[in-house]
Amino acid sequence: MYEGAVQELIDELGRLPGIGPKSAQRIAFHILEADPEDMKRLSGAITNVKERVKFCTICGNVSEQETCNICRDPRRDPSAICVVEESKDVLAIERTRSFKGRYHVLGGAINPIGGVGPEQLRIRELLNRLSDGQIQEIIIATDPNLEGEATATYLARMLKTIGITVTRLASGLPVGGDLEYADEVTLGRAFEGRRSLT
Amino acid sequence: MYEGAVQELIDELGRLPGIGPKSAQRIAFHILEADPEDMKRLSGAITNVKERVKFCTICGNVSEQETCNICRDPRRDPSAICVVEESKDVLAIERTRSFKGRYHVLGGAINPIGGVGPEQLRIRELLNRLSDGQIQEIIIATDPNLEGEATATYLARMLKTIGITVTRLASGLPVGGDLEYADEVTLGRAFEGRRSLT
Repeated sequence: MYEGAVQELIDELGRLPGIGPKSAQRIAFHILEADPEDMKRLSGAITNVKERVKFCTICGNVSEQETCNICRDPRRDPSAICVVEESKDVLAIERTRSFKGRYHVLGGAINPIGGVGPEQLRIRELLNRLSDGQIQEIIIATDPNLEGEATATYLARMLKTIGITVTRLASGLPVGGDLEYADEVTLGRAFEGRRSLT
Repeated sequence: MYEGAVQELIDELGRLPGIGPKSAQRIAFHILEADPEDMKRLSGAITNVKERVKFCTICGNVSEQETCNICRDPRRDPSAICVVEESKDVLAIERTRSFKGRYHVLGGAINPIGGVGPEQLRIRELLNRLSDGQIQEIIIATDPNLEGEATATYLARMLKTIGITVTRLASGLPVGGDLEYADEVTLGRAFEGRRSLT
């Protein structure tokens, strides 16, 4: 064990996701030897995020104001909502520049083993957004894994009764990938979703 | 790009060793969603380490006082010094409980490509410690890699002239390992260093 402050820092770092004891130690020593100004910026950035960043009251995305940049932007198409699991998914989709509507961040996916049911997700907030009749399409962009699929199925069933178009992002071969390395489920999905070229 | 504070935190985290852009993003979102008290402790631990932790004026190990716990401990054997590259090596050796002397932390190893020569290491401080004639053995415990070996050779040559016993930790097969998986250099060292069992 190190003396007080070093060990405390190693312990705190070790609680972060993906940081094992060895990494925590390496990072702690880096911090110890780094420029004090840089480290002031790091601890300041942590404090800042906790103080300044909230979640958009409309879509649940991270935001430094009551509502996020996207929800406030009048140029965004008000008739389409893309439903994602996490804020980072919003960023990933924004990078593609292929969606001009708004988002809804669920805050996770249905995962009975992990104790996450529909009531833990921001589904009620989504329904509230549909009440004004402006929304015409809900695009479900949850992850293409077990939890994401379960969430998509749940939402699709629930939204069907309201009469809004519900779509799901296509599954298939990753662009630039090699067919022979694709797993069988992905390849199967690619077959199911095949499109006419003629 | 995220809004201000989140992106700033991702940037600062991404500068830490072994944290790539994806990890930085994952950790930033963890911090965002974590308990504010826990995160206050994390940023406090960083500030604390920078404010409170110094380096022992005798051995160069991390310490919250002028001299470290080990250098201050009167029960430690004053006739032996174990020379290591980094503070973390002190901890690794302390865990074995097989060394009762004191340490000397060089602050790295000789690495001409990385621009680290003997003058960048705490070698002068080591020589100063030898001047009182109390030291009888120097155990060189630098890493068993190219830079560590170069440093060991350099120190051994320099110390030879003073007439102090200089030893080097044994290289050989890791205990619990499989002979067939040992690399050839390690296996070669294990042969060179073979001991009589009779």
